[in-house]
Amino acid sequence: MTSRTTVRTGLPSGLAAHGKVTPPGTGSRESADGAHRVLARCRDLVRPSLAAAIGRLHPWQGEMAAFSLGWCEVGGAPSDGSREGKGVRQALAVLCAEAAGAPPDSAVAAAVAVELVHTFSLLHDDIMDGDGTRRQRETVWKAYGTGPAVLAGDALLALAVQTLAEAPGPLTAVAVGRLSETLSGLARGQAEDLLLAARPWTGPGAVRTDEYRAMAELKTGTLLGCAAALGGLLGGAPEPVVAALDRAGRHLGVAFQAVDDLLGIWGDPAVTGKPVHSDLRERKKTYPVLAALGRDDRRSAELAGILDSPVPLDEAGALRAAALVEACGGRDATLEEARHHLDAARVCLRSASLAPRAAGEIEVLLGFLLRRRM
Amino acid sequence: MTSRTTVRTGLPSGLAAHGKVTPPGTGSRESADGAHRVLARCRDLVRPSLAAAIGRLHPWQGEMAAFSLGWCEVGGAPSDGSREGKGVRQALAVLCAEAAGAPPDSAVAAAVAVELVHTFSLLHDDIMDGDGTRRQRETVWKAYGTGPAVLAGDALLALAVQTLAEAPGPLTAVAVGRLSETLSGLARGQAEDLLLAARPWTGPGAVRTDEYRAMAELKTGTLLGCAAALGGLLGGAPEPVVAALDRAGRHLGVAFQAVDDLLGIWGDPAVTGKPVHSDLRERKKTYPVLAALGRDDRRSAELAGILDSPVPLDEAGALRAAALVEACGGRDATLEEARHHLDAARVCLRSASLAPRAAGEIEVLLGFLLRRRM
Repeated sequence: MTSRTTVRTGLPSGLAAHGKVTPPGTGSRESADGAHRVLARCRDLVRPSLAAAIGRLHPWQGEMAAFSLGWCEVGGAPSDGSREGKGVRQALAVLCAEAAGAPPDSAVAAAVAVELVHTFSLLHDDIMDGDGTRRQRETVWKAYGTGPAVLAGDALLALAVQTLAEAPGPLTAVAVGRLSETLSGLARGQAEDLLLAARPWTGPGAVRTDEYRAMAELKTGTLLGCAAALGGLLGGAPEPVVAALDRAGRHLGVAFQAVDDLLGIWGDPAVTGKPVHSDLRERKKTYPVLAALGRDDRRSAELAGILDSPVPLDEAGALRAAALVEACGGRDATLEEARHHLDAARVCLRSASLAPRAAGEIEVLLGFLLRRRM
Repeated sequence: MTSRTTVRTGLPSGLAAHGKVTPPGTGSRESADGAHRVLARCRDLVRPSLAAAIGRLHPWQGEMAAFSLGWCEVGGAPSDGSREGKGVRQALAVLCAEAAGAPPDSAVAAAVAVELVHTFSLLHDDIMDGDGTRRQRETVWKAYGTGPAVLAGDALLALAVQTLAEAPGPLTAVAVGRLSETLSGLARGQAEDLLLAARPWTGPGAVRTDEYRAMAELKTGTLLGCAAALGGLLGGAPEPVVAALDRAGRHLGVAFQAVDDLLGIWGDPAVTGKPVHSDLRERKKTYPVLAALGRDDRRSAELAGILDSPVPLDEAGALRAAALVEACGGRDATLEEARHHLDAARVCLRSASLAPRAAGEIEVLLGFLLRRRM
């Protein structure tokens, strides 16, 4: 099914070389190991509270939530853990509390809340997008039905707010206010995403890359910014630091989405679990494609013709489309987009005076997220 | 289509006569007029803030929300207002703030929040229940699609929390905590409702009326209790009064659901907009039916046989089922359930020392809600 010769490593470790993919070397491996250690430490810290929160749900909703988190199979049998998410949002909350000089457990309520919100949004977005597969198994609506999946998402959303609202301390109202703004931002981002998907590839209604970026900032950046800001807030950081953490998270979200888009076309199917060129086959409007179409030449016209055709894209068609996206500069532009917003995130972080050790771990995490292969 | 001879007035004004329907007389009309005045006053007070909140939504979600509120048609053209809801929840919040001796506008943020939550829950419940019609027109998912309706519900839920979280004052965190508990309760109630619907009519797995009541308290009572409690809380009522208002609202919810169930079988189609005996035709597990089936005799066995049959219920079948529910005491038991919980709500209200005028208006509202015809 997959044409391995056309598959790049998907490693945006080539960021440094601006589009030239560097082989995964020792440095990259060490950095990935470091990131995995950081993520695992945060997951281990947060898990008991996250599990206790899930345990408060109606058992039916609790099973759907645990399934979605990769903790169990349909029916409730424990899973082997291979389908668990990375837990980037919870890690960001914990690290930002530490960066504010607070003990990591001060951010646990925030970490649980953002992880619950993330789980909610995957659940509902998969319904809206009609996606039947996630992390190489059925999505919740596919496995349990649309109605139950809507309900499980609602319960997770309520639980997220409840968890944060119950956190002790004088900052609870401010924290819940930030979380609710984030929820509104996510809903707005998802609306933009659905509307962009329905627009034409070319002509006056075509989607511009700046519109796509604004959508990505809402849909992905808002929650990463919220995770960072809530961690800082509950860790006692002053407002300007909280605001800087929020901005850093938003830039990280845009960069994260750009890397997702690269992996959606050039990712290694053996690692991502998706078919080669999957985003092109599904005709998703992603940054590389929009950037390529924005170039007004013969090749971008050919690309538009392929994408506009009602015929399903076969392997040869997807391969040709990927080559055209690259030839029109879509891949380079996306690498540049990721690099630019990663740099912007770093600038925001450096503007705040953060505890060095936590700041170093955040840096390890940022590097890993941009070089990730899935 | 409808057999008018079999249609009762649907007026549980017969509550006093325990199942004997009294003709709508002058007293009933005056009381209804009074209730309509109270509801209209509260709607007029809350509307600018509710409209401003809706105006913060993404325009697409805003249109779906306004459609659901009966403010506009599909496409956004203003509606004639005939499909607007009664606004019971917002009224309860406003009246309970006044009952605590506060000016009505102190409860506006709470009133907006509970009305948004109510709108959210109708939107998502209609998806889960597959209901295509509400207030004699298409439901949101039917008119706009399932995905957009899921998203509009999410946006409304987020907006509800945000609206309350932004309310000034020292009680914001407590208020948001109550709202988030309510959201969790609603999700739990909806889960129970879906699970009860899937259970058998008879045998060891049959649904008992106490299970149904527990579901109704969560699904309907939680939000009415929250509306009352938040009104009291933002109106400055002490905690025991807030707790009493919450309990009153929960009892009211159970009574409200019992009346809904009576109207679902014996309501006047010309008023309810639903076919005669609609709940029986849809084989809904409602209080009258469950109470009737709980009686172990020949007629309840005949009723179970009709309900268990895979054949769609025709008019004669639905008429026979309704007669059996009544003969088995299901109608009387439901009237008694409504009356009992209305009385319990009154006891809770009398236990709190409330401002007399507002307490009188709440009483008018309670009486009307139990005697309503739709």
